[in-house]
Amino acid sequence: MAQKAALIVFAHQSPASFNAALRDAAVQELSGQGFRVTVSDLYAMNFRASATQDDIIGDLKNPDHFQYGDETMRAWTEGRLSDDITAEQRKLEEAQLIIFQFPLYWFSVPAVLKGWFDRVLTQGFAFSLQKIYSKGVFKDKKALLSFTTGAPESMFQPDGIDGDINVTLWPLQNGILNFCGFQVLAPQIFWDPVHCPAAVRAQMLEGWRARLGGLLMEKPLTFAPCELFDLSFQGGFRLRPEVKEEQEAQPFGLSTGHHLGKPLPPGDQTRAPSAGGNRK
Amino acid sequence: MAQKAALIVFAHQSPASFNAALRDAAVQELSGQGFRVTVSDLYAMNFRASATQDDIIGDLKNPDHFQYGDETMRAWTEGRLSDDITAEQRKLEEAQLIIFQFPLYWFSVPAVLKGWFDRVLTQGFAFSLQKIYSKGVFKDKKALLSFTTGAPESMFQPDGIDGDINVTLWPLQNGILNFCGFQVLAPQIFWDPVHCPAAVRAQMLEGWRARLGGLLMEKPLTFAPCELFDLSFQGGFRLRPEVKEEQEAQPFGLSTGHHLGKPLPPGDQTRAPSAGGNRK
Repeated sequence: MAQKAALIVFAHQSPASFNAALRDAAVQELSGQGFRVTVSDLYAMNFRASATQDDIIGDLKNPDHFQYGDETMRAWTEGRLSDDITAEQRKLEEAQLIIFQFPLYWFSVPAVLKGWFDRVLTQGFAFSLQKIYSKGVFKDKKALLSFTTGAPESMFQPDGIDGDINVTLWPLQNGILNFCGFQVLAPQIFWDPVHCPAAVRAQMLEGWRARLGGLLMEKPLTFAPCELFDLSFQGGFRLRPEVKEEQEAQPFGLSTGHHLGKPLPPGDQTRAPSAGGNRK
Repeated sequence: MAQKAALIVFAHQSPASFNAALRDAAVQELSGQGFRVTVSDLYAMNFRASATQDDIIGDLKNPDHFQYGDETMRAWTEGRLSDDITAEQRKLEEAQLIIFQFPLYWFSVPAVLKGWFDRVLTQGFAFSLQKIYSKGVFKDKKALLSFTTGAPESMFQPDGIDGDINVTLWPLQNGILNFCGFQVLAPQIFWDPVHCPAAVRAQMLEGWRARLGGLLMEKPLTFAPCELFDLSFQGGFRLRPEVKEEQEAQPFGLSTGHHLGKPLPPGDQTRAPSAGGNRK
């Protein structure tokens, strides 16, 4: 059997950062479990963030009106994506586990990591019209967001001024990871480590190591599976009528209830974590 | 009185794109209203997306552990941010209206525009611990997201497979624009123009022109104002107890109810648009 492989996509500028320590802990722990671990250190690689014509080798199909998605899909089919993209796609293909390690910038990933998503997850390679969400290309892979914040946890609580962190993570966890089929593990959030005493940061690091030990045994977050939707252009990729009826009959809930899930009743920790609920 | 100024931050690679046509329409309409309009054409400017040491002129405070937020805040105070950042900050300062024109990439802005947010909205310039949200630095400015999608509208409906577009826009509209105090105008969304007949695209363009005519008269989206929260570290920036009590007494709602608002009852179009509701 081939060796298991993990990929850590890392987006911090400094080797002395807490993010770097978290990356190193993951490399150690996963190597100890027999993984071959590859790190894409985006700043150190000077990874290009912007999606441009340079991503395509050779002639464009339509040089007078450059359409990035179209041109890169075609280039992927013909093996003409730029070398840096192809290298990242190889790493992603080979890995069964992908960890994104970054500091939260403006309620999302830093631009350099957004550029990795924009440029590496080419149509054809990472999704197709037929292969999205629970039918997605990477359904046999696990992925998770591991990040530090500059805000304390209380601000990102449901009653905090920034709102529920799970809503903020929705475009990343659902729109990118779940969209491509990844089994999304609960996010690993390090709240405001810069303003913590060193002893608390050390505890955070130990907690991360401990979690890594059992990471592959975790149940992924739950997202609404494709079967709930009518996956046709006539059906508009909307909830099937019978599912909608069932949802509307429930007394509580939100317009996005089929996606974000409902809070667990107090004491009920038996349900699987949902994308809107549980986090480590 | 000084001439009114508008800034369009534009993130599409092609001058022949529909996004470029939308930008040109905005330049024309706003110029016709007496605005001096500046366009930051990010790809054409080769705007750097990644947040690096190159953003700081002169010595770093802590070269052994580069912390981007700290170092840029200090550099801003001392007038040592790189010229490209300073130029964008000037444009932003001078403008009363800012339009972000882009194609939606992976449920968010393209990396080059995320880089504009990451690099231009320096702490000190765009926010401080005291100046956030409804007390934010840019509370006298209006901003809006104008974007094209690759998905049809039905997919981003509350019952669609991608979930409510307003949830997807939350990190951008709340986490960036509202956070910095901008009055956020309803997003202008062009659904899947690539797959529309030319006549429909022409209608979209006319609709945008018509909206631009009355843009400054529009009521901004409603976000939960600072006064609802206890803005102290002891209070954790969470809802004040009396506000929370009032919210919990309501039979419906979501953990983020104070932010995203509740759906309007059918037929009730009289309430102000909220961040979770109305869009053009």
